[in-house]
Amino acid sequence: MALIVQKYGGSSVADAESIKRVAKRIVDTRRAGHDVVVAVSAMGDTTDEMLDLAHEVAPIPAPRELDMLLSSGERISMALLAMAIHSMGFEARSFTGSQAGMITDSHHGKARIVDVTPVRLREALDEGAIVIVAGFQGFNRDTRDITTLGRGGSDTTAVALAAALNADVCEIYSDVDGIYTADPRVIPRARKLEQVSSEEMLELAANGAKVLYIRAVEYARRHGVLIHARSTFSSAEGTYVLGAGMKNPRATEGEAMEEPIVAGVATDLSQAKITVAGVPDVPGKAAEIFKIVSKAGANVDMIVQNVSAASTGRTDISFTLPKADAPTTLKALAAEQSEVGFESLLHDDQIGKLSVVGAGMRTHSGVSEILFEALSAGGINIEMISTSEIRISVVLRGDDLAEAARTVHSAYGLDSEIEAVVHAGTGR
Amino acid sequence: MALIVQKYGGSSVADAESIKRVAKRIVDTRRAGHDVVVAVSAMGDTTDEMLDLAHEVAPIPAPRELDMLLSSGERISMALLAMAIHSMGFEARSFTGSQAGMITDSHHGKARIVDVTPVRLREALDEGAIVIVAGFQGFNRDTRDITTLGRGGSDTTAVALAAALNADVCEIYSDVDGIYTADPRVIPRARKLEQVSSEEMLELAANGAKVLYIRAVEYARRHGVLIHARSTFSSAEGTYVLGAGMKNPRATEGEAMEEPIVAGVATDLSQAKITVAGVPDVPGKAAEIFKIVSKAGANVDMIVQNVSAASTGRTDISFTLPKADAPTTLKALAAEQSEVGFESLLHDDQIGKLSVVGAGMRTHSGVSEILFEALSAGGINIEMISTSEIRISVVLRGDDLAEAARTVHSAYGLDSEIEAVVHAGTGR
Repeated sequence: MALIVQKYGGSSVADAESIKRVAKRIVDTRRAGHDVVVAVSAMGDTTDEMLDLAHEVAPIPAPRELDMLLSSGERISMALLAMAIHSMGFEARSFTGSQAGMITDSHHGKARIVDVTPVRLREALDEGAIVIVAGFQGFNRDTRDITTLGRGGSDTTAVALAAALNADVCEIYSDVDGIYTADPRVIPRARKLEQVSSEEMLELAANGAKVLYIRAVEYARRHGVLIHARSTFSSAEGTYVLGAGMKNPRATEGEAMEEPIVAGVATDLSQAKITVAGVPDVPGKAAEIFKIVSKAGANVDMIVQNVSAASTGRTDISFTLPKADAPTTLKALAAEQSEVGFESLLHDDQIGKLSVVGAGMRTHSGVSEILFEALSAGGINIEMISTSEIRISVVLRGDDLAEAARTVHSAYGLDSEIEAVVHAGTGR
Repeated sequence: MALIVQKYGGSSVADAESIKRVAKRIVDTRRAGHDVVVAVSAMGDTTDEMLDLAHEVAPIPAPRELDMLLSSGERISMALLAMAIHSMGFEARSFTGSQAGMITDSHHGKARIVDVTPVRLREALDEGAIVIVAGFQGFNRDTRDITTLGRGGSDTTAVALAAALNADVCEIYSDVDGIYTADPRVIPRARKLEQVSSEEMLELAANGAKVLYIRAVEYARRHGVLIHARSTFSSAEGTYVLGAGMKNPRATEGEAMEEPIVAGVATDLSQAKITVAGVPDVPGKAAEIFKIVSKAGANVDMIVQNVSAASTGRTDISFTLPKADAPTTLKALAAEQSEVGFESLLHDDQIGKLSVVGAGMRTHSGVSEILFEALSAGGINIEMISTSEIRISVVLRGDDLAEAARTVHSAYGLDSEIEAVVHAGTGR
């Protein structure tokens, strides 16, 4: 008998039928003899509908009140889920973030978890109940106000509960049945991974993979929580995300577990590139520029600075950032043009980023050669390059991204025999 | 400067526009220099929609979970209302039932208030904020679970807050602009009362008047809260409900406040009549019958027993009860027919009840004569009669009720010069 934490996203509980399906799944886990704690998101589009309403009554909704509003979404879904389980003859109890002891700081809309005190959950488990917890929300002890955790909040709730309750596994359910070597919508021959290391998962998530939220994976790595990413719509095994020293519980004893060099190829079309052209090549200019960018609130990803042309004493600095951040950032830079002394600003929102991630890169050479050769053979031009210890990313034309990803995926020997079946949708 | 508690029902906050209108009304009260505490219901049909969802996922929803579900309705409306006020430049803070210190017993779905500890509300008021509280909900200290107060819960929330905070007045807003001498939909010449005593109000509410809930009026009377029933859609004065020793704050000093004999005529088409015919006229039979009725969960209103026919030694016992309770009650009685020894059961769901209510009845004679003469002149047959110290009720054919009410209303001199304007809808 194990203690299993399960997380179901909004699309898994979008209507009464879905809720009943999820309830059955939870009951099946209970029937198998396990204790079950569930973190659940708001139903389908509830959160977006509430946001629309909020903006109808107030142009800039007060953050405390917005959290009060949004947090009611999970209360609806969790109460319905508990009822559905109850009517199947199993004891189930729902708990809000504050009832579950999800203590956060006071940053409304993006609160960080500072402590988890699941006293009531333990009591309920001891009494044999299935525990349902509202995802995405917490409670600040000082202000005694309700907070929400922001994007990926429900994943983080699940992982934090798993850590606090010392659960055997944290199952993250979505409409995708695991972590793939690439986005199956881009590369139909992407292969489902049986396991992936948490550091690889972090790089994949940071570079475009959308199955798990970085924040939840980070929390799991720091607290030693085993994540199992799997599908609401199938009983097949998904992908285990392994932290340091963890073992895939499904791996056969004595099986040769040679680490593959590359875990996956991530693609990302959500970024734009800004080039600050003709920057005087004197010390401190880059610092000046990125101080302006940071003040504008932009989340910069890759940065490349060209070698200065000796004839002009000027250089170009390019960086990538989320498309949505580009307009504000361009405005902020333009306002300081004479101060900084650059010549012009170029904005390019037609880029794509391709990243190859693999813990094996640390010990294997030649990984980048395969990438560059494959792209060269495909006639695809590279505009920017950036690397980390276990990742190589390149920026290409957005139109080239899918073709580039297929070529590279093949070159690393990742293609599966069969094409993946793809569902659409995301939770929160 | 006064402390004013305001209650807005579901139809007053049905959509973004309505919420903004209510926000403006609250802000106007604040601008007039008053402290304001607001109890708010769930938006429009939210509660019914949630109930539908609950019944889709569970035939008999678990009561604890149903309360968790339904209580989220007020959290949505109160957060939106607080945002709307906030965006008008006024500080507003919303509080759930538990945050507001609304302590109840543990009867889910119909919890009773056992204590109100509005510590956080006082703090917020002291800091100059407008306070918004979720109506209809509370919190049980022992189980630490969320509860709901049942029908009329938001009115009760408002009155309980007014009592605990020692407010100057509790304004109950609805789509009706006060208490009328009769239902204006039945009697267009009904007159709005400037004031009504709480005992009259209780009799009116118990006998079909729907503007205020009995429970809230009772709470107000017991705790000395002045209620002002008025319209969300007009700034006109409504009706003050006066407890013992209270004075209408709008009454002119020295004005001759002769108490009218009759405050109003209430009509009620929601009841059915059951007659247990041929009951052996021996001691204890009535007790036997009403034990069965009470066990079936029926809420009996009027009871009439005919004089026994000497020839048969048998009598008929008739009683009225809510239409919805009739089928179960008939079944329960039929099951015990041989035990009790009655001859037959008659069920009549085409009755109407007319009640004349007035504290002046205590000191004036002739009140019942006016009623009986008016009905007789109108050729309307009386089937049952029941009286209290300040009320006379008669049961008639349902089809005769409206005509009877108009006749009686006229006979007591209650008709106004002009016809009332009527809105439709109810809150919770």
